[in-house]
Amino acid sequence: MALNNNPGELTLDPENWAELRKLGHRMMDDMMDHLEHVRDRPIVQRMPDEAKGAFTQPPPMQGMGAEAAYRDFVELLLRNQSNFNKHPRFWGFVVGTGSPSGMLADMLASGLNVNMVGGPMASTMLEMQVTAWMKGLLGFPAEAGGILVSGGSMANLLGLTVARNAKAEEAKSLGARRGMTVYGSEEMHVCVQKAVEMLGIGSDNLRKVPVDGDYRINVQALEERIREDRAAGLEPFCVVGNAGTINTGSFDDLEALADLCSREDLWLHVDGAFGAWAAIVPELRHLVRGLDRADSLAFDLHKWMYMPYDVGCVLFKRQSDQVRTFSNRPDYFAMSKDTPPLFADFGIELSRSFRALKVWMGLKENGVSKYQALVKQNVDQARHLKALVESRPELELMAPVPLNTVCFRYRGQGIPDTALDELNRGLSMQLMFSGAGAASETKVNGRVALRVCITNHRTTRRDLEEFAEAAAKTGAMMAKTPRSNP
Amino acid sequence: MALNNNPGELTLDPENWAELRKLGHRMMDDMMDHLEHVRDRPIVQRMPDEAKGAFTQPPPMQGMGAEAAYRDFVELLLRNQSNFNKHPRFWGFVVGTGSPSGMLADMLASGLNVNMVGGPMASTMLEMQVTAWMKGLLGFPAEAGGILVSGGSMANLLGLTVARNAKAEEAKSLGARRGMTVYGSEEMHVCVQKAVEMLGIGSDNLRKVPVDGDYRINVQALEERIREDRAAGLEPFCVVGNAGTINTGSFDDLEALADLCSREDLWLHVDGAFGAWAAIVPELRHLVRGLDRADSLAFDLHKWMYMPYDVGCVLFKRQSDQVRTFSNRPDYFAMSKDTPPLFADFGIELSRSFRALKVWMGLKENGVSKYQALVKQNVDQARHLKALVESRPELELMAPVPLNTVCFRYRGQGIPDTALDELNRGLSMQLMFSGAGAASETKVNGRVALRVCITNHRTTRRDLEEFAEAAAKTGAMMAKTPRSNP
Repeated sequence: MALNNNPGELTLDPENWAELRKLGHRMMDDMMDHLEHVRDRPIVQRMPDEAKGAFTQPPPMQGMGAEAAYRDFVELLLRNQSNFNKHPRFWGFVVGTGSPSGMLADMLASGLNVNMVGGPMASTMLEMQVTAWMKGLLGFPAEAGGILVSGGSMANLLGLTVARNAKAEEAKSLGARRGMTVYGSEEMHVCVQKAVEMLGIGSDNLRKVPVDGDYRINVQALEERIREDRAAGLEPFCVVGNAGTINTGSFDDLEALADLCSREDLWLHVDGAFGAWAAIVPELRHLVRGLDRADSLAFDLHKWMYMPYDVGCVLFKRQSDQVRTFSNRPDYFAMSKDTPPLFADFGIELSRSFRALKVWMGLKENGVSKYQALVKQNVDQARHLKALVESRPELELMAPVPLNTVCFRYRGQGIPDTALDELNRGLSMQLMFSGAGAASETKVNGRVALRVCITNHRTTRRDLEEFAEAAAKTGAMMAKTPRSNP
Repeated sequence: MALNNNPGELTLDPENWAELRKLGHRMMDDMMDHLEHVRDRPIVQRMPDEAKGAFTQPPPMQGMGAEAAYRDFVELLLRNQSNFNKHPRFWGFVVGTGSPSGMLADMLASGLNVNMVGGPMASTMLEMQVTAWMKGLLGFPAEAGGILVSGGSMANLLGLTVARNAKAEEAKSLGARRGMTVYGSEEMHVCVQKAVEMLGIGSDNLRKVPVDGDYRINVQALEERIREDRAAGLEPFCVVGNAGTINTGSFDDLEALADLCSREDLWLHVDGAFGAWAAIVPELRHLVRGLDRADSLAFDLHKWMYMPYDVGCVLFKRQSDQVRTFSNRPDYFAMSKDTPPLFADFGIELSRSFRALKVWMGLKENGVSKYQALVKQNVDQARHLKALVESRPELELMAPVPLNTVCFRYRGQGIPDTALDELNRGLSMQLMFSGAGAASETKVNGRVALRVCITNHRTTRRDLEEFAEAAAKTGAMMAKTPRSNP
């Protein structure tokens, strides 16, 4: 065991720094190799049964040393781990790619081991600068509030917490009032429901309003539902707008929602997990018209900004709403503007990682313009895939493509819908395991479809061309083969 | 801008991998140097005013490249950043030290860029193994539930969410009931209040019960308060026990709390942020007697397990309670035990970082025995400091030292308490800026004290000896000097 400079005392610092440094350099080379050649490796890997046993062992009493621990990492984890969202041909769920520089920034952050509580530290200024950048890029005023969090679920949770407290001031001290209702479309993300459950509002008070043919919330139906609820003695307080739904990438009419919320005195929260980033691309900005009128906005940076997991953000139009919810310092509003902030006044976590660093370094390295170009590139790629699908009669486009998400299926000729559901379910698996590309399986209008959501800076148009061709060919082959479970 | 393999298409991968690799190796060397020599650098650093301007600039439109971004990191951040909890002489708040191997594990995790949603991946098995280790080390049964989170605040929040839903099943769908009350001692952490506020229970329904002379909850007062609340028509449902309070490191009598909770049908949640780890040291285990009877337990690994930020954990005696709160899959309990879990069924986050890796590699590298020895070493060091304080008549011990926390003050001779408060407030700053050591300033029985909380694997007994001597000498000097603001 390594001793500290006092004989008989231990430390986790290495006995031999040169050795650990050498191991660190080896890891650096291995990871750079891993990332440089990710295209050549499989999208998905299955763990051999004999490796599984290692993951059921108790922790060792005596340490094996850093080098042996790394060997276990390589043999048990790295060798068996699916590449999924790192791979150029992964378009399932909505997951970002990460990047080699992002990894380096995370190493620096972990080495510094800052607990990001705030106060007079350089790292506090850095995180405040990152939050200011977020406000600027997404059209929020400089005096707005915001905080970095682990991702969309936390960002939506914090947004709805502040919404609840802003509309029911006594909730913080007396508890939630029964009968406060929240509204969003059928297409909203499940994390909104989880937030509503956690906040003591209750999932029965979350209204899932129907969508139109473009998967946008039906604003008239929303308005009627609010009126009905009011008539029934309930208390509508918040509308959740979608900027980029998970299923089809559709955008609610945020301008109409903002008008409605202003008329009805409701809080407008926008879930812009990835879609909010349309705001930085001039050609796409019309999709988020009205975003700047939201009271709060949740979004990720590990999806469409391609930062490594985890980093998301929530912004609040009025910082005072945010602080009144999270701060327990009675003197907060009396403090000088120059006092370095404590992040506990802005959110729920006291222990916080230095996730701001990868955002700061990423934006410096690449500049806003590169992220603009990459977001636009992914959208152009989705349009390219849409055109490819439309050009092949055996494929069928299943939903509009407003952004980066293409839902389609193999339809062949004269095959009934139920058989197509089964075929496309198998097709999605087949394409992933063959390496052609990984799409999610989803349902559009009750029918199984392949869903390609492109938030991947490694994807090329050629990847999508080969994927469309593989889908057509594999689909045709599967249509000819008798299925084992008809 | 770097092109992808298709001409005209962009990527965040480097144009020149060899160059980025070289930069990565440089960062590795710089961080190893940084950590190897942290003892020789100041605990705290102030940022020069001229550097502050850089943190108010907007993000660059055109990128500066990875090397220039790193230069900015070094010049603006690293050079001006306080070393605080990395430093051998930092004992403020409760913050862990991190470690060089922890940094390497975080680099690997970020490079892999796994979104830890679970499912059939090697990383899922790894995280499940880590959770199993936590249960085993802290005396929870193998069939208990658990999940890794960002730290104590989140762990306590999840614990109390499950407590609320277990005791009021309809909370998830209908919302929180008014008048449900939670109990803990005056010494409990503020994050419990923030959790209660978020959950729609309300801070007015959090009872802060007095403590005894050893800063342990007065169980009789607790029992009376519960009886009174019941008589007033309120609904007590949860007691929060402390295993290691933030102020003095005291332990509530968990056995007595477990008896009470069992008698009164209340949920016992234990906040064991750092103190829970007393459970792994045979000589300290008596402090947490009764811990294994808790319904839920929150604790950190970035404090006393010295892992880099962020990683904490919450355990649940009955996994079914946890799943009923967080899962929205109606078929969950019908699934085969062999189905790979989805972590969304266990907690609030869908996007999750691969924080499990540093725990897995750390325990493999060092073995349980080294963490046992280090926790015990910190406790022995606290006892050593206590003895040093008691051996000097000009210093005064202000609270018992049950664990790793020593509260003391300079008292000199014949100085009135109000003057001592001011003196010790200045003394704490003076000692930190001089490099003698960083303690928190706290109040014990209404008097200002220096609070030394040792969760630091770099600290030696000699550090504490020099700190005690500096406190005595500096205190004497300050007592002689007329103060500018008497």
